[in-house]
Amino acid sequence: MMTKYFIGIDGGGTRCRARLEDAHGKLLGQGEGGAANIMRNPAQATTSIVDACTRAVAASTLPVQLKEITVGAGLAGANIPSACHAFSNWQHPFDSLSVLSDLHAACLGAHDGQDGAVIVCGTGSSATRCVNGEFIDIGGHGFLVGDIASGAWLGLKAVQHTLLALDGLIPRDPLCEAVCATFDVQDDSALIQKVSAFEAKDYAVLAPAMVTLNTDGDAVARSLFDEGSAYLRRIAHHLLDNSNLPLCLIGGLSDTYKPWYDESVRARIQPCKSSPEQGAIAFAKQSIKQGAQQL
Amino acid sequence: MMTKYFIGIDGGGTRCRARLEDAHGKLLGQGEGGAANIMRNPAQATTSIVDACTRAVAASTLPVQLKEITVGAGLAGANIPSACHAFSNWQHPFDSLSVLSDLHAACLGAHDGQDGAVIVCGTGSSATRCVNGEFIDIGGHGFLVGDIASGAWLGLKAVQHTLLALDGLIPRDPLCEAVCATFDVQDDSALIQKVSAFEAKDYAVLAPAMVTLNTDGDAVARSLFDEGSAYLRRIAHHLLDNSNLPLCLIGGLSDTYKPWYDESVRARIQPCKSSPEQGAIAFAKQSIKQGAQQL
Repeated sequence: MMTKYFIGIDGGGTRCRARLEDAHGKLLGQGEGGAANIMRNPAQATTSIVDACTRAVAASTLPVQLKEITVGAGLAGANIPSACHAFSNWQHPFDSLSVLSDLHAACLGAHDGQDGAVIVCGTGSSATRCVNGEFIDIGGHGFLVGDIASGAWLGLKAVQHTLLALDGLIPRDPLCEAVCATFDVQDDSALIQKVSAFEAKDYAVLAPAMVTLNTDGDAVARSLFDEGSAYLRRIAHHLLDNSNLPLCLIGGLSDTYKPWYDESVRARIQPCKSSPEQGAIAFAKQSIKQGAQQL
Repeated sequence: MMTKYFIGIDGGGTRCRARLEDAHGKLLGQGEGGAANIMRNPAQATTSIVDACTRAVAASTLPVQLKEITVGAGLAGANIPSACHAFSNWQHPFDSLSVLSDLHAACLGAHDGQDGAVIVCGTGSSATRCVNGEFIDIGGHGFLVGDIASGAWLGLKAVQHTLLALDGLIPRDPLCEAVCATFDVQDDSALIQKVSAFEAKDYAVLAPAMVTLNTDGDAVARSLFDEGSAYLRRIAHHLLDNSNLPLCLIGGLSDTYKPWYDESVRARIQPCKSSPEQGAIAFAKQSIKQGAQQL
């Protein structure tokens, strides 16, 4: 049976987006839901996915039912085999559901399903390359053990730096002042209390101020971006060396880090051709064509 | 009214210990309870404290009731004013309760109530100096923003290092092998899953293997202890400079870091004179003598 409707999901640690298309790729409606990380909270992920899809359908004002729709879902945590396996038991309401990681969906979207590499650096960081449909991932391990160079990583470093300054172990400086101003705190105990329940996204709130400080020539901010960029450069060479793959940079910190890449890497950078949601739809279509098992 | 019985509490993030004494400091019984961090979980802290005290009384086999006992409690989180204030509403079952931070109790115990400084480095890290009853704290901000040089900090660094190696960005090395062996994992996704719900104490499990690697001359382990020791050296000078205060080192990593301190600091190091529980009792007695408000 030829499915008339497709939804692509881009599901991350804070929200998920759904894009409803017809068989020709025409956008019919879009919707958003909550977090969709199937390792951290699979129950919440199912709710968020259904919410986002329901809203995308409602936005289309078409008489489409979820059970008619072929869904491709790029989901955070889908790179963890056991999380993916556990999630496959979900009795979803769609015609079919093909799951891949949010990173792979982004890569497929960015390169329109062709071979290529992506480095994502926003709240988190991760990277992958796709050659002949085979992915090799780097990073994407999540805060706090991974996500080096990301907004969350930068923000945590800034808080740690600020605590040294508030303790009198190093001088107070513009980064310390920016952290105290952002969180409206004056001393270390107020700062500790403020961050006591922080998640990655809460630390990442500091990133824009740090980008500004770096642009203004602040040495401490600069040293943190230097440290982050060393990781991203290492990733870029690991992804691209001995290939002629194009590279897409994705995420809110991509432009900031771009000057730090070597010229040979910068020459490969291209704009994204389409979105992660579109990448997820392409994956679902490919899965059906290949007769792969859908959920 | 002269109280006949005293209990000193040493309450930390994983457990709390109670020491029951008579008015002459004679040990009558000891007991343990669960975690007692009044910032993270005040309700649990009250349960843990009562548990530990009840067990100390039971161990004494004396017909003592909690309401007869003067309690001094050194509690994690008591350095956060708002946490301490919230905790003061507790309708405790004791004759009186005097609260100070676990760090201050350790310092009072280590120096028998005299002026001195302590650097604690075990699962966490913190430091304080006491001069004429006035404390100045450094660090003690807790994992993950603080606790630099601690077992939790070392373990997190080891996991981050291992993920780089498992990603192929750096060579696998003895530290990577030690982390994989400790957690019985072979690849990055298994390691990520293993640490996904880790707390400070879970990361700190790696510290003994890292101490061994350092002793055996491993360069990567050595570089992490170098980084940690730079923080501890900075703290030591901040605590001791322009004074002749003695210094006690407390916690499981104290001996490991000892050679990294400057000779001028090492010359000040003394063994602890008594325990944090005894320090907490001394604080309670002092509070009563000064007519300070007890809870």
